[in-house]
Order: sequence, then C-alpha cells, then structure tokens
Amino acid sequence: MTAVKRADARKNIESIMDAATACLARDPDVSVAEIAKAAGVGRVTLYGHFESRATLVTQVVARAIQQSDEALGAVDLDGDPRAALRRLLEASWKLTQQYGALIVAAEQSMPHEQFQAIHVGLIDRWKPLMERGRSEGSFRDDQPLQWQLTLLQSVLHAASGAVYRGEIDAAEAAGLIDGTIQAALTAPE
Amino acid sequence: MTAVKRADARKNIESIMDAATACLARDPDVSVAEIAKAAGVGRVTLYGHFESRATLVTQVVARAIQQSDEALGAVDLDGDPRAALRRLLEASWKLTQQYGALIVAAEQSMPHEQFQAIHVGLIDRWKPLMERGRSEGSFRDDQPLQWQLTLLQSVLHAASGAVYRGEIDAAEAAGLIDGTIQAALTAPE
Repeated sequence: MTAVKRADARKNIESIMDAATACLARDPDVSVAEIAKAAGVGRVTLYGHFESRATLVTQVVARAIQQSDEALGAVDLDGDPRAALRRLLEASWKLTQQYGALIVAAEQSMPHEQFQAIHVGLIDRWKPLMERGRSEGSFRDDQPLQWQLTLLQSVLHAASGAVYRGEIDAAEAAGLIDGTIQAALTAPE
Repeated sequence: MTAVKRADARKNIESIMDAATACLARDPDVSVAEIAKAAGVGRVTLYGHFESRATLVTQVVARAIQQSDEALGAVDLDGDPRAALRRLLEASWKLTQQYGALIVAAEQSMPHEQFQAIHVGLIDRWKPLMERGRSEGSFRDDQPLQWQLTLLQSVLHAASGAVYRGEIDAAEAAGLIDGTIQAALTAPE
C-alpha cells in the first residue's frame, strides 16, 4: 500500500468511527448502511475496515470507554468531598449525554461479562472519592459503599431515560442528579 | 365439552399460568418446554391453551399486573406521608421481588408502548401520595414530581439488580430502598 492509500484508509477509518459513534449514540439499532452514509463512504469500504457490525460497535465502544475514562480521570477529586462529587457527577452526566444510546448498543453487541467488566472499570473511578467522603463524615456510611455506587449509576441512568422521554429538560438534569445524590448521601437526623 | 373436561382444562390453564409466572420470574428466556414440564403438562396441552409463547407471556404478565395493582391499591396511604411512603415502598419491593425477571420477559415480548402504558399505570398509584407529601411539606418540592416518581422506580430497579448480582442481601434491600428514598426526598438545609 502506498503512503497516500494508507493515509486515505486512516481517514476513512476515523470517519467511520466518528459517524458510528454519533449514529449509535442516537439509535442503538442503526444499520451499517446508515453509518456508511453518515461517514461518506460506501458499504464495501466500511466492511473492508470492519468485518462486521459487531466488530465496528465493539471498537467504537472501546474508544468511547477510553475517552470516558480519561475524562473522569481528569476531574479534580481533591478538597471538599461534596464539591468533588458534584464535579464528578457533572463529568459523568456529560459523558452519559454524549454517548447516549451507545451504551445500549454495547450491551446488545458484546458479551455480558465484557460489558460488565468495562462498566465496573468506570465506576471504580468513583470509589476512592466515595470512600474518602464516608470516612471524613461528608457522606453517610450507614449503607454499604457498593449500594451507594449502584445508586449513583442508577440516578444517572434514570436522568438519561427521563430526558429521552421528554420528562425533564437536558439543561436541568445535572442539577437534579446532583441535588438527588447529595440528599441521598445525607443520613436523616 | 363435558363439565369434567372443562374443569380439567381450567385446572391445566391455572397450572400453566402459575408455572409460567414462577419460571419467568427466575429466567425471562425460559423455554415453553420448561414451563410445560414445571406445570406437569405436555407441550401439546400447553399449546392447546396458549397458541404461542408470546400469548402465554402476555397473559401471565397481565395477571401479574392486575395482582400488583390490587396489592398496591390495598396499601394504607393515609396519615403521615413518610410512613405511608415506607408502606408503599415495602409493598412495591415485595412485588418487584415476587415477579423479578417477569418484567424483563414482558419488555421482550410485548410492544414497547403497551409495556410503558402498563408501567405508568402502576406508577400512578404512587402519584397521589407524592403530591400530598409535597403539598404538606413532608417531601421536598424543589424538584419536578415526575423526576421523583422516576427516582422511586429507579431505586427499586437498582435494588433488584444489586440483589441479583449478590451485592446486597435481599433481606437488607427494603431498608436500603426506604433509607435512600426518604433521604433523597429531603431537601438539603
């Protein structure tokens, strides 16, 4: 392959990955034909780079996971645990919005264990902060840590569904998530 | 058909419905053969009463919904809104546990709109209490009512998943659900 052809191939792969990310984030059942169209390439070209829809979805998800992990890793978790939690929830919500239905596509196209392992990896980003907040008395510790981690994830997921169904505005979601979680992590008097 | 045959048919239908409820509550993908076996009837008998797996699932779900609605309708919602909410959450959690994976089977085998309509019907049972608690000052009203209803459902769902994955004990789940929801419905000072 010549250098020009290799550069073309790289450009096509990138266009396909970007188009697939955007398409899957809107509709987890989007067809390969639609992704190819959005990427501005033919189906034959797409299948030349990705042997199946599942391969494409897996690679798109892997890249989204890596970017999500980097984004969460960049959040400042020092200082007041409740302020740090607010920053972490904001970043997590932004990723939830950005990747949307991609998570549904991932669940459908990869083995359940693999999906769980990836998900757990992201949630591990929350764990040290939750542990610190519990031990410093900022968060209630009368409930298992694991339950609180599940709750965080569940509230983000609930907000995503509520925005999708038009029950709440995307703009107010971050505030609702933070207001709900901060209250849930406060033990009643 | 003779009276005896009719009585036999009724008994078979009941056995199949009960077996299907129990089997689907454990495994949403359970086969018709397994349901027939659990009911103590042959597959031919089962298909004589239910023309397809989808028909059987739909009827089992319809019955579970009706029983759930009756159970929720029997909860005393008078008096202190927080105590009433505790009773309602306990009853809702019991149903979540009882029917378990049946809800997954329902999602898979009925049209999305029908499933949503049924679900919304059950959630409407929570609405008057939530409205009263908000207007009486027992629950925070700085968040949309719809969000709080979504949250209730989401926390029940999260607990169900956490018990299924072995993260929390079924015995402690009711307390965690109530402790989490009551806190989440309390506005920070």
